[in-house]
Amino acid sequence: MTIDEMLSRGVSEVIVEANVRRKLNKGKQLRLKLGIDPTRSDIHIGHAVALRKMRQFQELGHTVVLIVGDWTAQIGDPTGRDESRPRLTVAETRSNAEYYMDQVFKVIDPAKTEVRWQSEWFGQFDLEKAFGLIGRFTVNQMLAHETFRKRYEAGQQLTVLELMYPMLQAYDSIAIKPDIEFGGTDQKFNILAGRQLMEQMGMEPQDVILVPLIIGTDGRKMSKSFNNSVDILMSPKDKYGKIMSMGDDVLPVYYEVWSDTPIAEVKAMAEAIKAGSVNPRDLKMQLARDIIRQLDGEAAAAEAEAEFVRVFQQRDLPSDMPEVQLAEATNIIDLLVATKLAASKGEARRLIDGGGVRLAGEKISGYDSLVQPVGEQILQVGRRKFVKLLSN
Amino acid sequence: MTIDEMLSRGVSEVIVEANVRRKLNKGKQLRLKLGIDPTRSDIHIGHAVALRKMRQFQELGHTVVLIVGDWTAQIGDPTGRDESRPRLTVAETRSNAEYYMDQVFKVIDPAKTEVRWQSEWFGQFDLEKAFGLIGRFTVNQMLAHETFRKRYEAGQQLTVLELMYPMLQAYDSIAIKPDIEFGGTDQKFNILAGRQLMEQMGMEPQDVILVPLIIGTDGRKMSKSFNNSVDILMSPKDKYGKIMSMGDDVLPVYYEVWSDTPIAEVKAMAEAIKAGSVNPRDLKMQLARDIIRQLDGEAAAAEAEAEFVRVFQQRDLPSDMPEVQLAEATNIIDLLVATKLAASKGEARRLIDGGGVRLAGEKISGYDSLVQPVGEQILQVGRRKFVKLLSN
Repeated sequence: MTIDEMLSRGVSEVIVEANVRRKLNKGKQLRLKLGIDPTRSDIHIGHAVALRKMRQFQELGHTVVLIVGDWTAQIGDPTGRDESRPRLTVAETRSNAEYYMDQVFKVIDPAKTEVRWQSEWFGQFDLEKAFGLIGRFTVNQMLAHETFRKRYEAGQQLTVLELMYPMLQAYDSIAIKPDIEFGGTDQKFNILAGRQLMEQMGMEPQDVILVPLIIGTDGRKMSKSFNNSVDILMSPKDKYGKIMSMGDDVLPVYYEVWSDTPIAEVKAMAEAIKAGSVNPRDLKMQLARDIIRQLDGEAAAAEAEAEFVRVFQQRDLPSDMPEVQLAEATNIIDLLVATKLAASKGEARRLIDGGGVRLAGEKISGYDSLVQPVGEQILQVGRRKFVKLLSN
Repeated sequence: MTIDEMLSRGVSEVIVEANVRRKLNKGKQLRLKLGIDPTRSDIHIGHAVALRKMRQFQELGHTVVLIVGDWTAQIGDPTGRDESRPRLTVAETRSNAEYYMDQVFKVIDPAKTEVRWQSEWFGQFDLEKAFGLIGRFTVNQMLAHETFRKRYEAGQQLTVLELMYPMLQAYDSIAIKPDIEFGGTDQKFNILAGRQLMEQMGMEPQDVILVPLIIGTDGRKMSKSFNNSVDILMSPKDKYGKIMSMGDDVLPVYYEVWSDTPIAEVKAMAEAIKAGSVNPRDLKMQLARDIIRQLDGEAAAAEAEAEFVRVFQQRDLPSDMPEVQLAEATNIIDLLVATKLAASKGEARRLIDGGGVRLAGEKISGYDSLVQPVGEQILQVGRRKFVKLLSN
């Protein structure tokens, strides 16, 4: 991947791009900061866009410095929130963080990652140090942050403590001296606070790479409450199903950030989808398999795909099909002939041998199977021939 | 002094008055909080109005708890300020505080005073405790404070640290559990923050006695920069002169807060001044003597008065008077006769004996004094007769 592509694909903004290029060209091992907020339990592939971008940097030899926000988590990131969060205890924070880490290392390489806890510096922070930090930020600057200003102007609860969130995140950069901080576009205010603080304290300011907040599978904001996210710890099967349920127009966005398909192809794909000249289902299957491969490995991806195909085909039944009453347990060969799905017992055996016979989606593999009269069951031969078995 | 008078004279507001009366009637020794801010070096009798009020409570047996704001001083009280103050170091704070204490104990009784330094509790404050405090106050609440709101709305620098000033002052009340906090009316916001915090933390909230901010001797706001304050550590002579220079309409205000003259008499005095039926100069002299007696003792007050009388009389010169050239050093007896201030040497001697002869305001006590020809000098006999001696 070229530097141009690294700095543009799945990237919303680079501040200051010339500096990042200079840093990359120096050949020095860069320190890439990502603050993680152990208030949320589950991260989804939207959150993981920054992680995937950092993974690309890791592949060039750079180091990720993951900051576990065990102190900011006690405040709770106010960004985009219209009310204060309940404060977490240190113990809750630690347990959340461990769970979080299990997820993070499905995307980034633990061997090229330094994990640092905020308590390393904030655990020793006395009031004098806190004064030194808080005194560097003004109320006007803080209320220029949209989240804060909106809540202030609407008279909603906004504690002074919440104003400290960006300051603490900024101070992390003093502690670990990153070259570049990564985050979603919603983190721009907080990350620029770090740039400012480093400058004020006489350090070379970090640069910033902001990644897009990708939309949910249904085209709305990705959110647990909309049930439109693909969570890192979902089973491969659930991930596959979720990705397949994605809106067609969302698809190119995910291709851009989660696949290595050349960006020109992704753009062509978006056009083809609009023009109806490509079946989005096939593109989704390819994407699902790719994402699951990255997160859970090749075998899991293949298995999820097979599982999906089976279930999907079952869903893809014709809306009307012949119905046959099944009064008692019946041998499969006899049943295939009786329902006219096979012209003869010989053909019935050949169909079974070819793997083309399924009962309730499950492949039938022996000639001796007995089909029990239980509710409604679909008996299927190949892709086109179905009979609905009924029992009383 | 009755409780009614204690709670009304020189008092702007009592919150909650019924509670204060109940506390006073219980016969319990009350803890009276006063936060002092060791950023200012000199306190004046305006600042000391609260101290004088507390002295009255001390005389009933109650205890003053003086809190040296060695931590809030590092922020600087933003009240009424339109810009941030430079932060003081701990060392500066300590040295200011000691100087401050020398002044305070000219008004309150050290034997009934407990002095506490904020560092006792804030020196141990870690970030977690700070979070616990800061999280209890909202931005809306803070910006309801006129000082903060004005600066915010004018886009003037207002650091987030300054918002912590009222919180720290409030926390002092958690540490020392006062029954009543005293302060000027400009401290209302800060002191009510203490009331709120005590309630939030399950304590009986302190009551509040606010004293007026008395105006300067020239009728403007009392301020060092206007040179219109009477400082506690001024020499008695300077205090006397400053009080005598006071505007007539300011006088009753000072009588109310700094004298024990019955309040009805003070009111009558204000009327009499307006009607021109009393000489304000005499009232000022009485007040000056009373204030200096309270701050510096009876002897210092008497001496300052005598000094003032002497200088005052000299100032009270007629605008035109005979001028006489003095060419060479001349005996005082000869001079009195030559200038026609005495009809004869015998009268000249009697005038000297009677203490009625002054040169440049200084009493002449011997017959042999030689008057030197130096610049302009006033030679005076009694209250009415003057000659201006000139020399080249």
